[in-house]
Amino acid sequence: MSATEHLPELDPDGVTAERVQAHLDGRWADVRARTRDELRHPLLHPRPGLTMEEHRERTLEQAHHLAKTDGPRLLFPEEYGGGGDLGGALTSFEVLAHGDLSLLVKAGVQWGLFGGAIMQLGNDDHRATYLPDIITLDLPGCFAMTETGHGSDVQSLRTTATFDVDAQEWVIDTPDEDARKDYIGNAARDGRMAAVFAQLVTKGASHGVHCFLVPIRDEDHQPLPGVTIEDCGHKGGLNGVDNGRLSFHGVRVPRENLLDRFGHVDEDGTYASPIENATRRFFTMLGTLVTGRASISGSGLSAAKTAMTIAVRYAGVRRQFKAPDTEREVVLFDFRQHQRRLLPLLAHTYALHAAQQHLLHLLHESFDVDVAADELPDRRELEALAAGIKTATTWHASNTIQVCREACGGNGYLSENRLTELKADTDIFTTFEGDNTVLLQLVAKGLLTDYRDDFGSLDTLGTVRFVADQVVETLVERTAARQVWQSITGIVSRDEDTDLHDRAWQLQTLAWREQHVMAGVARRLKAGVDAGRDAFDVFNEVQDHVLLAARAHVDRVVLERFAASVDACEDAEVAALLDRLCDLHALATIETERGWFLEHGRFNAQRSKAITAAVNGLCTQLRPFAELLVDAFAIPDEAVAAPIALGAEHARQRQREAAAQT
Amino acid sequence: MSATEHLPELDPDGVTAERVQAHLDGRWADVRARTRDELRHPLLHPRPGLTMEEHRERTLEQAHHLAKTDGPRLLFPEEYGGGGDLGGALTSFEVLAHGDLSLLVKAGVQWGLFGGAIMQLGNDDHRATYLPDIITLDLPGCFAMTETGHGSDVQSLRTTATFDVDAQEWVIDTPDEDARKDYIGNAARDGRMAAVFAQLVTKGASHGVHCFLVPIRDEDHQPLPGVTIEDCGHKGGLNGVDNGRLSFHGVRVPRENLLDRFGHVDEDGTYASPIENATRRFFTMLGTLVTGRASISGSGLSAAKTAMTIAVRYAGVRRQFKAPDTEREVVLFDFRQHQRRLLPLLAHTYALHAAQQHLLHLLHESFDVDVAADELPDRRELEALAAGIKTATTWHASNTIQVCREACGGNGYLSENRLTELKADTDIFTTFEGDNTVLLQLVAKGLLTDYRDDFGSLDTLGTVRFVADQVVETLVERTAARQVWQSITGIVSRDEDTDLHDRAWQLQTLAWREQHVMAGVARRLKAGVDAGRDAFDVFNEVQDHVLLAARAHVDRVVLERFAASVDACEDAEVAALLDRLCDLHALATIETERGWFLEHGRFNAQRSKAITAAVNGLCTQLRPFAELLVDAFAIPDEAVAAPIALGAEHARQRQREAAAQT
Repeated sequence: MSATEHLPELDPDGVTAERVQAHLDGRWADVRARTRDELRHPLLHPRPGLTMEEHRERTLEQAHHLAKTDGPRLLFPEEYGGGGDLGGALTSFEVLAHGDLSLLVKAGVQWGLFGGAIMQLGNDDHRATYLPDIITLDLPGCFAMTETGHGSDVQSLRTTATFDVDAQEWVIDTPDEDARKDYIGNAARDGRMAAVFAQLVTKGASHGVHCFLVPIRDEDHQPLPGVTIEDCGHKGGLNGVDNGRLSFHGVRVPRENLLDRFGHVDEDGTYASPIENATRRFFTMLGTLVTGRASISGSGLSAAKTAMTIAVRYAGVRRQFKAPDTEREVVLFDFRQHQRRLLPLLAHTYALHAAQQHLLHLLHESFDVDVAADELPDRRELEALAAGIKTATTWHASNTIQVCREACGGNGYLSENRLTELKADTDIFTTFEGDNTVLLQLVAKGLLTDYRDDFGSLDTLGTVRFVADQVVETLVERTAARQVWQSITGIVSRDEDTDLHDRAWQLQTLAWREQHVMAGVARRLKAGVDAGRDAFDVFNEVQDHVLLAARAHVDRVVLERFAASVDACEDAEVAALLDRLCDLHALATIETERGWFLEHGRFNAQRSKAITAAVNGLCTQLRPFAELLVDAFAIPDEAVAAPIALGAEHARQRQREAAAQT
Repeated sequence: MSATEHLPELDPDGVTAERVQAHLDGRWADVRARTRDELRHPLLHPRPGLTMEEHRERTLEQAHHLAKTDGPRLLFPEEYGGGGDLGGALTSFEVLAHGDLSLLVKAGVQWGLFGGAIMQLGNDDHRATYLPDIITLDLPGCFAMTETGHGSDVQSLRTTATFDVDAQEWVIDTPDEDARKDYIGNAARDGRMAAVFAQLVTKGASHGVHCFLVPIRDEDHQPLPGVTIEDCGHKGGLNGVDNGRLSFHGVRVPRENLLDRFGHVDEDGTYASPIENATRRFFTMLGTLVTGRASISGSGLSAAKTAMTIAVRYAGVRRQFKAPDTEREVVLFDFRQHQRRLLPLLAHTYALHAAQQHLLHLLHESFDVDVAADELPDRRELEALAAGIKTATTWHASNTIQVCREACGGNGYLSENRLTELKADTDIFTTFEGDNTVLLQLVAKGLLTDYRDDFGSLDTLGTVRFVADQVVETLVERTAARQVWQSITGIVSRDEDTDLHDRAWQLQTLAWREQHVMAGVARRLKAGVDAGRDAFDVFNEVQDHVLLAARAHVDRVVLERFAASVDACEDAEVAALLDRLCDLHALATIETERGWFLEHGRFNAQRSKAITAAVNGLCTQLRPFAELLVDAFAIPDEAVAAPIALGAEHARQRQREAAAQT
């Protein structure tokens, strides 16, 4: 008997793609529908093989087109010409990411980062002065945070903004080449102003990193005096985005150009902030920018959905090798290995969709620029959630698109079939808006310290000492009590006889791993410090363990969100299908980590093999639903674009149209 | 005590990159030195951001330049203007792959595939007539095997070559769109002739796939009558290669244009072949083309070496985040996670280098076009070896370049730093010259059937039935006796107390896995057939198990080759360093597969954790040698090219030069 034979049979006629789509679309279904319509506009259709200059030109044109639509303005409060719907705005970006990702990133820079900085870090005057022109793209801008020498470690930025009391001006300076602003989108070609992150210096004292509005180009698009602009040149992808380097030499801007929600300087040069602790202030500021991270997360996921749509549809029609005793060749998707390659990835995509939607809901509810800086709700857990989900979605995108390319063979390598472009464009997603490895450490640090008040101030040494100071058992207990079991009702079952398809068993298994790894990290940190060893060495020796803890945490959260979304689905047949998909997600995740589970005695060898058999069984069961499950992503044909993913007749029609245009 | 403390300490001053290089360079060190010099020529320097047309033009220019050097001609016998040194030719291609891979592939098509087909499948007249012009690139040609509908399943090609006795001509026809020759390098722009694989039909009977020389363009580069040429357009990489599609409609070529080493047609249309069995004939023909596969394998490996060189050098200078209580930031490579990401990949790169060199030696010894077709030595085991190593090197390249890109952060995404281009260019290596998944099945089939005489003729059904007919235990026994233990002297030690750094234990562990998985496959196939089930279903259910068997086999072979090359190294200090690197390769491989080993009781949880600790210890020990180990690849700076991998001053110098040129 196969591992899944006892499960109720799924009826391929019992459910439609539209009904699954309705579940996936969720709260902002109307925004999704409108953005899908936008993607059908000929200007937004993918066009491979452009030169960098052509691509930049087209992307700017697309951005101007986009500025006339609803999507970007949703991000901003209504009083500044916006739509006041953060969740809608993020949803719109997410759907837009089925198209050319250069546009997505260009839009993210202009509205999400540049506009977002002014909205979140500025005051009402800043908002009223700049946001209307930002929304319409009349003021194209940059978000100048990263420096050549400091990407991940933003707190150590070395650009300075020194207050000149006599002139009532800030003087912006780049001390050396290492402190150039680097990889800055919109800088090489189009940007007229930059939100520049620099160390604020006044009255001879430094008050940490703040953000300043600095014009960089005049009306004729020439660099302003003291501003040096270099072009980062050709990149591995996203060549429609004009990344550049900015250096400042004695560049002066008025006192008012400090975005001063979190730190203000009077005419006499006196600094004041609603948040006393400099490090906490810094992290609170950064925290307001978490939506950018969430947006990249959603975009990576959308790219993965596009790739899955292409590979699954191709797998369903491409035939290769005859089965014995027949003349007809076998459809690729009927090979077990092909199911094994694609179906767990499809299940993970659904799981991450649920997690991403959850994140969007939380962000939508929690953001309000009208709240005073010192009354902002504690969002450190939310920030860690965004960081964790971002690492999961962007690595998932990289991996999934790669597998999809390989699964489409030579056809997958033709640019017209989009997979190579999706791979190239999303490759940097694991690095920007927070390098994934650094983000995982952030997640782990939050868990280890229980998001304590001065969370941000805990550097490596602080974290190590803090953990060492705790009674380790208390940490473990708290972790278990608060985070691990919260969503699990019923008793813990570790019985080897429990059905592998039991959701509670799956959740408990991942939660057990999270707790076990976290406790192990805490114990090792404590032992190192107790032995009087160097804090960095102690941390460094445990680093891979720390990263594993964060990944285990994210795995548990993602399964929890997928399970919750299935539970919440009111369409019984859709829920039944998604329930099976959730099994595949959970068991494929556990299977991947089975080495760890066996090492730690969570289950035995027989159980481990049964998990592999169950994954195989689920692949067989779900294979007839694969096309329906990608159709439910409802990506417009114009955005999918790949001829191999559209009907043959459709593909020929598109070719005729293209030929007629040239 | 750490896992590696008992090992003798390595002395960083005890060995130099040059001495390691001497070991790596091996038999064809002179060819390597000459080809490295070629890579220093300005025309061959990487140049990112070209348009497809510019790139194609430059690649052709480079190919003409290359035609004047020694490398390509080494491939061909001296009597036709060649150098008669197959190993040297393959080595030259391998080194060339540190440069622009479009040139490598263009060269591979012209000399390796087109020239190789004439050399291996033709007669002396063909060789004398065409090879001189092919060597000089006066006759640019294509290798037209793959069809739109048949990539991996070459035997099912549907292009026909029908003999017209009255005209003494072959008539070449493409029956429909699915049978177009597709992805054909050199076809879209430069090729004047194609080696076309087609079903040979004479006197109303088909004799299977043969190769025909078909002119496709006239002197003015216009397609000849009946030949339709399409351009595959922009690709995910390798855009210097002009891939196209070829269709033939009543195209006539003389009788002599059949490359007839393996099948001849008389003036009266009578077919004769030195190999009676049509399937065996087909696979013998294909077997002569195995050098192309070996060449791609070496090229993928070279690209991985280039990427490792860049990422390791960058990791040694890039600083990020301060260690506690210090002002100086930490070098990336001092983070454990960074060592964990890069060092096992470096060890695998060395291991695969040894395996690839072994393959080259065997190929060099075994190829001789003067041997009569029916007296060719049995090379099926060699073909399987080439297939297996190709899967390992090309997947390794994909994975390694990806990790190196991520390890270099934003810098890794700039085209000038080469990693994205290396990734894009090598991505198709896992697909062309044999899709890796299909190749692994070929490897497994060979192992299961012991390369029996009519090996080629065993389709899925045949394999399944053959295996079922065997006494499974016999198979297992034979596998164990012949393949598994051959290189292992001394007794089998499964003792949990054996030192993990014991080479015999490492080899035995991988050999045990190979044997165990293979026996399991055989048992499952037999059980399925004994139960009277459909052969395809039986095979399909075991497919993932079959692929695992092949991978386990390749893992064992690669470790064996690395171990053998370390044993053969006469420089004691170099050998000591490589011995440690071999430990890392072996233990990291076993660690990755520890889920399987635990499931199958090969070792227990404690041992499994000890392996992870040993890998960590080896990373710490080898970190001081990492730069030396990549320097030993001896890739010319002009080919590495990435500013982040060269000294800062060097990088600035290059920038000044580039600025002066424009």
